[in-house]
Amino acid sequence: MMDNYINHILTHKDLLYSGVLADVLDQLGQRNCVLPSRIRPLDPDWTILGRAVPLWAVTVTRIPDTPYAVELECVDSLAPGDVLVAGTDGHDQSALWGELLSTAAMARGAVGAIIDGFARDSSRILAMAFPVFAAGCHPHDSKGRLAAIHYGRPIEIGSCPVCPGDIVLGDRDGIVVVPASLADQAFPLALAKVMGENQVRAELASGRSAQEVFAQYGIL
Amino acid sequence: MMDNYINHILTHKDLLYSGVLADVLDQLGQRNCVLPSRIRPLDPDWTILGRAVPLWAVTVTRIPDTPYAVELECVDSLAPGDVLVAGTDGHDQSALWGELLSTAAMARGAVGAIIDGFARDSSRILAMAFPVFAAGCHPHDSKGRLAAIHYGRPIEIGSCPVCPGDIVLGDRDGIVVVPASLADQAFPLALAKVMGENQVRAELASGRSAQEVFAQYGIL
Amino acid sequence: MMDNYINHILTHKDLLYSGVLADVLDQLGQRNCVLPSRIRPLDPDWTILGRAVPLWAVTVTRIPDTPYAVELECVDSLAPGDVLVAGTDGHDQSALWGELLSTAAMARGAVGAIIDGFARDSSRILAMAFPVFAAGCHPHDSKGRLAAIHYGRPIEIGSCPVCPGDIVLGDRDGIVVVPASLADQAFPLALAKVMGENQVRAELASGRSAQEVFAQYGIL
Amino acid sequence: MMDNYINHILTHKDLLYSGVLADVLDQLGQRNCVLPSRIRPLDPDWTILGRAVPLWAVTVTRIPDTPYAVELECVDSLAPGDVLVAGTDGHDQSALWGELLSTAAMARGAVGAIIDGFARDSSRILAMAFPVFAAGCHPHDSKGRLAAIHYGRPIEIGSCPVCPGDIVLGDRDGIVVVPASLADQAFPLALAKVMGENQVRAELASGRSAQEVFAQYGIL
Amino acid sequence: MMDNYINHILTHKDLLYSGVLADVLDQLGQRNCVLPSRIRPLDPDWTILGRAVPLWAVTVTRIPDTPYAVELECVDSLAPGDVLVAGTDGHDQSALWGELLSTAAMARGAVGAIIDGFARDSSRILAMAFPVFAAGCHPHDSKGRLAAIHYGRPIEIGSCPVCPGDIVLGDRDGIVVVPASLADQAFPLALAKVMGENQVRAELASGRSAQEVFAQYGIL
Amino acid sequence: MMDNYINHILTHKDLLYSGVLADVLDQLGQRNCVLPSRIRPLDPDWTILGRAVPLWAVTVTRIPDTPYAVELECVDSLAPGDVLVAGTDGHDQSALWGELLSTAAMARGAVGAIIDGFARDSSRILAMAFPVFAAGCHPHDSKGRLAAIHYGRPIEIGSCPVCPGDIVLGDRDGIVVVPASLADQAFPLALAKVMGENQVRAELASGRSAQEVFAQYGIL
Repeated sequence: MMDNYINHILTHKDLLYSGVLADVLDQLGQRNCVLPSRIRPLDPDWTILGRAVPLWAVTVTRIPDTPYAVELECVDSLAPGDVLVAGTDGHDQSALWGELLSTAAMARGAVGAIIDGFARDSSRILAMAFPVFAAGCHPHDSKGRLAAIHYGRPIEIGSCPVCPGDIVLGDRDGIVVVPASLADQAFPLALAKVMGENQVRAELASGRSAQEVFAQYGIL
Repeated sequence: MMDNYINHILTHKDLLYSGVLADVLDQLGQRNCVLPSRIRPLDPDWTILGRAVPLWAVTVTRIPDTPYAVELECVDSLAPGDVLVAGTDGHDQSALWGELLSTAAMARGAVGAIIDGFARDSSRILAMAFPVFAAGCHPHDSKGRLAAIHYGRPIEIGSCPVCPGDIVLGDRDGIVVVPASLADQAFPLALAKVMGENQVRAELASGRSAQEVFAQYGIL
Repeated sequence: MMDNYINHILTHKDLLYSGVLADVLDQLGQRNCVLPSRIRPLDPDWTILGRAVPLWAVTVTRIPDTPYAVELECVDSLAPGDVLVAGTDGHDQSALWGELLSTAAMARGAVGAIIDGFARDSSRILAMAFPVFAAGCHPHDSKGRLAAIHYGRPIEIGSCPVCPGDIVLGDRDGIVVVPASLADQAFPLALAKVMGENQVRAELASGRSAQEVFAQYGIL
Repeated sequence: MMDNYINHILTHKDLLYSGVLADVLDQLGQRNCVLPSRIRPLDPDWTILGRAVPLWAVTVTRIPDTPYAVELECVDSLAPGDVLVAGTDGHDQSALWGELLSTAAMARGAVGAIIDGFARDSSRILAMAFPVFAAGCHPHDSKGRLAAIHYGRPIEIGSCPVCPGDIVLGDRDGIVVVPASLADQAFPLALAKVMGENQVRAELASGRSAQEVFAQYGIL
Repeated sequence: MMDNYINHILTHKDLLYSGVLADVLDQLGQRNCVLPSRIRPLDPDWTILGRAVPLWAVTVTRIPDTPYAVELECVDSLAPGDVLVAGTDGHDQSALWGELLSTAAMARGAVGAIIDGFARDSSRILAMAFPVFAAGCHPHDSKGRLAAIHYGRPIEIGSCPVCPGDIVLGDRDGIVVVPASLADQAFPLALAKVMGENQVRAELASGRSAQEVFAQYGIL
Repeated sequence: MMDNYINHILTHKDLLYSGVLADVLDQLGQRNCVLPSRIRPLDPDWTILGRAVPLWAVTVTRIPDTPYAVELECVDSLAPGDVLVAGTDGHDQSALWGELLSTAAMARGAVGAIIDGFARDSSRILAMAFPVFAAGCHPHDSKGRLAAIHYGRPIEIGSCPVCPGDIVLGDRDGIVVVPASLADQAFPLALAKVMGENQVRAELASGRSAQEVFAQYGIL
């Protein structure tokens, strides 16, 4: 079941976007908090905001004794507000994720899946409106090509750490990972920065010099 | 003129998608049947299903004596139900395909073009609704940059063989090449698998454990 | 203020597209006039036609004494009809461009921004309908990661020179840079070629052989 | 203990080289028998000829419960004439192989190690004269970065299968994998081809036309 | 003038190598201390051990007003025991470093140069025996292609920080950067680990099981 | 037969190196005169100086009717002082060049071969001391993988033009292509620059400030 904090953040979901959150993490000294830019939403209008459940999958060259075992166990463990975040070390020869896993994850209340790898059945996932972010699409199934080896433990994607309970926000610009320990600080600061930007935007739209406006507000 | 077999398959076109066909070829021992994932439909909603006519083009550094000769001959040879499938060994400095060749191919009944290379005039091709899959777009013409050297013979794209008469199915997830000799087996099996997935989807959507459902049906 | 020549060209904006302009530059001996194909419009339907204002930015590893100084000065210098064209030598770890700079540029009459690098705030830029072309999106701000060092001087992007006053045309297929000294020749020739293609298209659509039509018109 | 067949081949080791063996496999219809060219001998004069023991390692992001367990078990299993052939799916952030594993492998009679990944302690390995082929060198240990998950089973490196008992020959040009089932045919044919080339070389060195000599002998 | 600490470390230079130092930094929690593996010694037998002087250079597309100004100032600032460590963000179109800068640096007592970029005049640098590590060689001069913008401040190469006063050790396996604050701990631990490995090597060479030896010593 | 001009240049071969020639071409406005840095001598001590004979080869996916026909004709056409310069558009799956073609070329007086592609039989080529520069080595023969389609006409490698009769100089740093029309100017200037550098080197070695020496001589 989803805890209150996530509930609270979600009420502001439409105000936030990845850039403002990344800026706030920069301020807090966390300058490496973005997943590789190859990971994109299947529908560019989708956003994700939820609690990370990391999964680690590796390239294999033969069919394992119990195919899909770790993937299925991980999906069955998902709770409302969760986001599966899977690392594959850049695998591009098959799809780790598809429509049936999306169906199972959605049935448990998960709010999205972020795959540093490939997805398939993308037209059906689009029809379901279950937000999947992936590095691309591929018709090949993962069986005998890619296998999960653990979930629910810290992983790294690119050089960005992803730990269980971190908050992830993904949109058209990319995916920001907020460490669980910084979430209480980061989200209020981000909402405050959104307000400041509204003022700056109005000044710039009126034709005032960008140099002057930046000198006055310090926001860009 | 298009033969009966393709006609028959085409009646089921809307039921099939690349993932299910790739799974069936995996079962039949054909684990390398997908074109490189860089090749994507210009309009992501487009699908292609037809008979492959392979064309091979190579990078050149000067204008040939008879520019476009092989491309034009190939396009003039296309029959209803055909799909031109062009390999360029990753050429990314000019477009092999454009609006006028699309117009000519469409006039002969071709159902699409798959280019492991670049296209141009993409807004006009979109307006024509002639399904073109390509690795990207580029304003440069191919003349003096890329030239076809043969067509109607077997080629390889990535490490996937494409032979005249193979059946290709392309959609948002990618492109599957069904060897002509396996088509009779592959398409009925694919339709059967589509039926099985419908049952699995309903079970998962109802919230049943993914582990249990996979144990029962063996489908993912 | 925008000069008359650009005004004149702009009246024909809807007739032109990047491929026909690249063909005309090929004819004029200018075979290297296209920016790298990684640079794409955020909205694929956007086109840009305007006068280039080059900016050069470099990867940095610490925050400069006066962050954004050159970017802001450049944006404040933009005049109606201008297009900011920024080179970053392939930087992919942060966004040089975003919503606030778009707002400032638009307020000055700039008709677009072309970034050989990344953008952010893309959903807001889409809402503004200010045409931005970029190599991708990233939530990270450029501060301490990427810094402009000069503008208004010649640069190179890929191996294509971009000089102040060159005319750039960008669309779904890519971006063509017309050297200022060739603009008077190139645009009339391009309009003439557009007319010729209309005839060829009609012939091909009627089912005439592509080989014959090309032999007659010499256009493809 | 090494079987007689390998013993027999080894007596001809100095006559053979990778190119002639690849040509013979081409003739036998095995056109995909070479490991990726990034794998090179640490000392370019080294050659390896022996029986493959495949090992598969994957990128990890945390230290396993029993680090090195599979690597050590595999090394302890090596017999005289064996060559460890390790796949890592292109891992380049740490070294799978080093001096101490080389020492242990050499003590068991192994004749080399081929790593599609990185090695370290390379100056000491050079001093030992134990032939190691690798994709590069890196000071980082594999612990918490790369872990073997099985050995003694078929793997794929690049798209080349490597099965237990295949014969591998590596030299300055690259590494050829001879499937166990073809070894009896391939090695005698290779020795015969070596003889033919001696004749061709003498003809060419005397200044005879290359076109004529190839027309006569069919060897290049 | 070189301080005593570096003097002291240098007396043990021949005992140390990059792998053992990287292992010790792993133990100390510094798991990201190695420069990109593309940087290699021009002569593979060369090693470097000294104090880092960072320089940052960026790609430019025109000749600066005062070419080479920062490079020359940096080289004139070098003291005995120093190692110039230059970042270029992967520039591969010209050489930042050559024979004349090597001559000037050597005359000041610098013990090497590490360039994450290209060098030239390599045969003369080899003749001088001044240890240069670089990502490759290129005949093109940097003028108008690459320009230094600062030195003596912290930089990042790959994702490894390099600060003034850090100790760098480079050899055939790669380059380790020891943060100045950890040097007092790291070097004694490294020397101790070297001793432990001698014992392990002897055990393994005698044919004892690698699994047993690792279980006993915990060293690999 | 080799003309007098090449004879004359060759008498100064040991004085020249690629960097000084590239600098002189920069002065003459020819800033794009270097082949891609992936092309390296098989023996790093080798140098080549001779007259270019361009060859263009393309990736194929089936065995041509007359394999090797263009390669053999080209080799038979070589004259004393010639250097075969082959472009393959980055092909890395087989070797265009080997020992037997080296033997034939050497017998005709060719002074080297430069392959933007792969070579094989490298240990034998090293034994012959015939200077071959290549992007790497591969055991696979080119037959059915790579085929020459013309020679003796202008080509481009990377973005550097190579025309019949251009003078190429290759060494450890890379390969410079001197357009035939500039050779008369470039070589005397290069010899003059070599003299100037001797003076600068002596000044720097004596410990004089690099800034001062550059201010005085303008050479780096």
